[in-house]
Amino acid sequence: MVNIGVVGCGYWGPNLLRNFHELDGVRVVGCADLQKERLEVIKKKYPFLEVTRDFRDIVSSPSIDAVAIATPISTHYALAREALLNGKSVLIEKPMTASFREGEELIALAEKKNKILMVDHTFVYTSAVRKIKEIIDRGELGKVFYCDSVRVNLGLFQHDVNVIWDLAPHDLSILDFLLGKMPVEVSAVGACHVGNQIENIAYLHLNFDAQLTAHIHVNWLAPVKIRMMLIGGSKKMVVYNDMEPSEKVKIYDKGVTFISDEKEIYNALVGYRRGDMYAPNLEQVEALHNLCSHFVDCIKSGEKPITDGEAGLRVVKVLEACQKSLENKGKMEEIK
Amino acid sequence: MVNIGVVGCGYWGPNLLRNFHELDGVRVVGCADLQKERLEVIKKKYPFLEVTRDFRDIVSSPSIDAVAIATPISTHYALAREALLNGKSVLIEKPMTASFREGEELIALAEKKNKILMVDHTFVYTSAVRKIKEIIDRGELGKVFYCDSVRVNLGLFQHDVNVIWDLAPHDLSILDFLLGKMPVEVSAVGACHVGNQIENIAYLHLNFDAQLTAHIHVNWLAPVKIRMMLIGGSKKMVVYNDMEPSEKVKIYDKGVTFISDEKEIYNALVGYRRGDMYAPNLEQVEALHNLCSHFVDCIKSGEKPITDGEAGLRVVKVLEACQKSLENKGKMEEIK
Amino acid sequence: MVNIGVVGCGYWGPNLLRNFHELDGVRVVGCADLQKERLEVIKKKYPFLEVTRDFRDIVSSPSIDAVAIATPISTHYALAREALLNGKSVLIEKPMTASFREGEELIALAEKKNKILMVDHTFVYTSAVRKIKEIIDRGELGKVFYCDSVRVNLGLFQHDVNVIWDLAPHDLSILDFLLGKMPVEVSAVGACHVGNQIENIAYLHLNFDAQLTAHIHVNWLAPVKIRMMLIGGSKKMVVYNDMEPSEKVKIYDKGVTFISDEKEIYNALVGYRRGDMYAPNLEQVEALHNLCSHFVDCIKSGEKPITDGEAGLRVVKVLEACQKSLENKGKMEEIK
Amino acid sequence: MVNIGVVGCGYWGPNLLRNFHELDGVRVVGCADLQKERLEVIKKKYPFLEVTRDFRDIVSSPSIDAVAIATPISTHYALAREALLNGKSVLIEKPMTASFREGEELIALAEKKNKILMVDHTFVYTSAVRKIKEIIDRGELGKVFYCDSVRVNLGLFQHDVNVIWDLAPHDLSILDFLLGKMPVEVSAVGACHVGNQIENIAYLHLNFDAQLTAHIHVNWLAPVKIRMMLIGGSKKMVVYNDMEPSEKVKIYDKGVTFISDEKEIYNALVGYRRGDMYAPNLEQVEALHNLCSHFVDCIKSGEKPITDGEAGLRVVKVLEACQKSLENKGKMEEIK
Repeated sequence: MVNIGVVGCGYWGPNLLRNFHELDGVRVVGCADLQKERLEVIKKKYPFLEVTRDFRDIVSSPSIDAVAIATPISTHYALAREALLNGKSVLIEKPMTASFREGEELIALAEKKNKILMVDHTFVYTSAVRKIKEIIDRGELGKVFYCDSVRVNLGLFQHDVNVIWDLAPHDLSILDFLLGKMPVEVSAVGACHVGNQIENIAYLHLNFDAQLTAHIHVNWLAPVKIRMMLIGGSKKMVVYNDMEPSEKVKIYDKGVTFISDEKEIYNALVGYRRGDMYAPNLEQVEALHNLCSHFVDCIKSGEKPITDGEAGLRVVKVLEACQKSLENKGKMEEIK
Repeated sequence: MVNIGVVGCGYWGPNLLRNFHELDGVRVVGCADLQKERLEVIKKKYPFLEVTRDFRDIVSSPSIDAVAIATPISTHYALAREALLNGKSVLIEKPMTASFREGEELIALAEKKNKILMVDHTFVYTSAVRKIKEIIDRGELGKVFYCDSVRVNLGLFQHDVNVIWDLAPHDLSILDFLLGKMPVEVSAVGACHVGNQIENIAYLHLNFDAQLTAHIHVNWLAPVKIRMMLIGGSKKMVVYNDMEPSEKVKIYDKGVTFISDEKEIYNALVGYRRGDMYAPNLEQVEALHNLCSHFVDCIKSGEKPITDGEAGLRVVKVLEACQKSLENKGKMEEIK
Repeated sequence: MVNIGVVGCGYWGPNLLRNFHELDGVRVVGCADLQKERLEVIKKKYPFLEVTRDFRDIVSSPSIDAVAIATPISTHYALAREALLNGKSVLIEKPMTASFREGEELIALAEKKNKILMVDHTFVYTSAVRKIKEIIDRGELGKVFYCDSVRVNLGLFQHDVNVIWDLAPHDLSILDFLLGKMPVEVSAVGACHVGNQIENIAYLHLNFDAQLTAHIHVNWLAPVKIRMMLIGGSKKMVVYNDMEPSEKVKIYDKGVTFISDEKEIYNALVGYRRGDMYAPNLEQVEALHNLCSHFVDCIKSGEKPITDGEAGLRVVKVLEACQKSLENKGKMEEIK
Repeated sequence: MVNIGVVGCGYWGPNLLRNFHELDGVRVVGCADLQKERLEVIKKKYPFLEVTRDFRDIVSSPSIDAVAIATPISTHYALAREALLNGKSVLIEKPMTASFREGEELIALAEKKNKILMVDHTFVYTSAVRKIKEIIDRGELGKVFYCDSVRVNLGLFQHDVNVIWDLAPHDLSILDFLLGKMPVEVSAVGACHVGNQIENIAYLHLNFDAQLTAHIHVNWLAPVKIRMMLIGGSKKMVVYNDMEPSEKVKIYDKGVTFISDEKEIYNALVGYRRGDMYAPNLEQVEALHNLCSHFVDCIKSGEKPITDGEAGLRVVKVLEACQKSLENKGKMEEIK
């Protein structure tokens, strides 16, 4: 039996709580939040849970093995550190920390304490993203040329971080998982429209090498919800539309072939290939179920999670560089 | 009766020809193209037309009043200049010219010759864009915050210009028409994937002022055709999806209101408004019909076209700045 | 505090249980199911619940005020009867009973016992259906001409009833609520394809009067999930697409006007009107939450539920007539 | 060179004219229509055409080899008869004739005169329908269980025939082509809402055998345009959505398997299979181009057209039976 405590019962915490609660071999022992009203809602749903306004009741409880942290980003480091110091395994909401330095420290601490440090990069645990990973890894797309991601809707405006730190971790963690490499330079531009000095729309551009780029549009002030990624490859191309009820992933046997014949320079330089499209069947499982289950498995086996502290740190590193670029009007920032 | 000649019978020229042919009070006299096969296709459809491989037969023909130019961009200037010098009114495919300097010259020449110079910014003549213009002008959106345009599909790769010069003129001309002002700085990034040193994917960012930005994604190597523009305003927001058979324009009564109460800093900073959506009925007319008809009207009346040389020149100015930024890895370029 | 017991923990029962559990002023006391495995799942989620394989523990428990029945249709009557006899209020899954006679008895019994008898016509409690009702009632559609409903997907095949008794209650209860009247005659055709003598596809046709008809396509063997209703009126028309994440209801200002001029008999007999479309904002509430809340309110106040026994009986009456028509190859059956 | 004359220049005639005109080896000689205004429009587009208000100028012209008839249904027989008697091959708009008897006569006459008689069942010449035919013929769907077709939109109301005779020929000709057999009985219900005693909405039901049925919803008074056919098979299922710009045909590897184990009667009676979906690439050709080209080929070779008089007659036979059923409130009509 793995005993879990949850810190933070705002928007996301209750989802973690529910998923842990429904797992076999897991007991959710208690949860903490600063707001009394939230605890009352939890208590109504789970009358057997211990609830507390003091996170220390969770992170230092001897009856708890692991802590899930779903609080504002600025508090991730302090809460995770405290939990690790108390010998708990830790699952942290994305992004892992507010800075690269904080992330490095947590990784070192987890290693020293020999505890699991995992980041909640939820989308990595979806059937859709896993299927795309499989397709890329078996070479079906050929060389990947670009990824273009749009993640926009109305709200939820955050008070402490801009839209990049709020939404882009989803895209960056998907790209990290799919491509398996870091960009060498990034740029970001954005704007804020609702008076709080926090950007609500932003565009990120990532260069991996001369031929591989990624682009991300994140936006809290859009009239419709769009969650769409285009992936162009030399052989095939993917449309990943997360808003589709089924058929989220479509693989197109489409592309161009370049004919480098000097004499042909004004005709037929480019040949088009338009073949069939297919949409692989995707298992209907809640990603968070997979994620929570994986966290518990890692605690039991001692194995590294797929989205471990290092994965979390890579995302934070790119976020920091984007933030710097944003403050410099989109100037390219190297990632060292 | 206005007598028209068409130069260039590739992809777009035949559309211009057909629309002029169907107008009352207009006679298409002849057309020119370098390729014999194209002329044969035209001759089969319009056996009464004069066809020629020498554009001079058109631009200097005494029986022709106006010339429509639908040739590669690099030839626009020379052809339009010749036509104007011969006293013809001129309609040029977008973008007007390959450089700002060329555009300026044509404008001066048209003025001197007292002839109409019009640019084929087709989308400005669609019911959809006109409806959006109407909605913006009557203040329905409030202050416009951003425009985000995606214009991607597979092909048609051009041999002489990159995807910015090929596709972005559509978006830039729509923005020029809708917003009625020039950006103060722009940046562009892109990549080429098919070996011909010509960018096939690019992202443009335009800053108008601190609160108004525009972003454009143009792409010849996408698996699906997307033609979508989001327009965010302080009061309402628009989704313009040109791929919809009807309901191309949707206006959302959605938005956020910012509460600047210091004490409320952690709650309810932002209020959301989610009202009805409506899709105005759009007249079902081919944009090119409107455009050709407007060109003929201007020839008859001597009035300035909506998309006159100045409009064409503004688009070229932004394209040139984007090209420069592209060559400098996305460095912001001022528009003076 | 209203104390609730749930009988039947298959597909739908757990949804009722969850919604009752989350209501204030309600306590779910226990639940019954014949299958041990299902009870174990419930016990895992709600460790504080009493679970039992004997429904009598629920329907006769002195600590229970009301019973929700979510079992196979053939058992509805016996279970509801037992509960009413024990002085419990009753909520029954659709369709209320397997026959008109059974339904009549339950209504009489509930009246005699002065208890609430309510039927789970879920869709009547959706924001979408309520909005459409509002629109019809204020005359916005003019005279309603037809309703066409398509409710198809793959599965869930039932073992004891055909697709009409399984899916059509949704459509019939929506029509009952929207139109407020009974059809005067109905017909039904269907077919079974998977060997169990139970129709998996069927079409129902309902005549209300010479000008108002309804048609329903229900199908367990369709490749895609469609939940769409068209409602044609003399002034406006509605598309209700339940698969849309938002914008489920669209109202079209479209129609025709008939010109009865004898002289015009070959031209312009019909004039078309194509105006704007709008999609009213719909409150985002789970229908089952509204339904459970309404049931509890009725228990407290003694008021008749919107979907009371009479509403349930009307649906059963139409189902019986459709079944008879189905067995007579689609012969029209009068509804007396 | 095949010389063609067109009779009828309303909605569809000009499309036939344009397609014949663009074919190699074909010359459109002239066209006839009762309305002067229509002839003027034709003359403007095709100044080299002979136009006439007297159809006899076409059907008896010695310089014409074949006649395309696109006039109201009631006139098909007389016009086609006249043309055949004058030794012309004939292409007739769907439905071929207003009655079975008329159709039989035309077939006999065409045979006697040794001329081509072809019916314009346009959809049979689309890439989509041909691809589905190919898929069915190679057994990919297994046994076909049902076809469900929806063909609805606003307009065009006809003055002389109801919506069944206007729209259902499309569906009936598609079914005739795909299934290669006749229904054994049919029924039809409908209603008229705009005062002219002509049904504007109708539902057709066709039984082929105990396991194969087809259903058709045709409607002139719908707020949106839907052109969708579901085809259920024992192995796979098809969605044919003609409104999709691409991906019109989707094949779903979905279905159920029936387990006839007596002991399992309450569980797992039905197993579900949910595999991948694919959308075959479809050639982008105008169906009417294929059709016109096929007509000309048949004239040259003397071969029977795919949609010959017999195909046209089968459709008329079903229409007549549906009309009879419609007048008998949906009573099943045998097709002998």
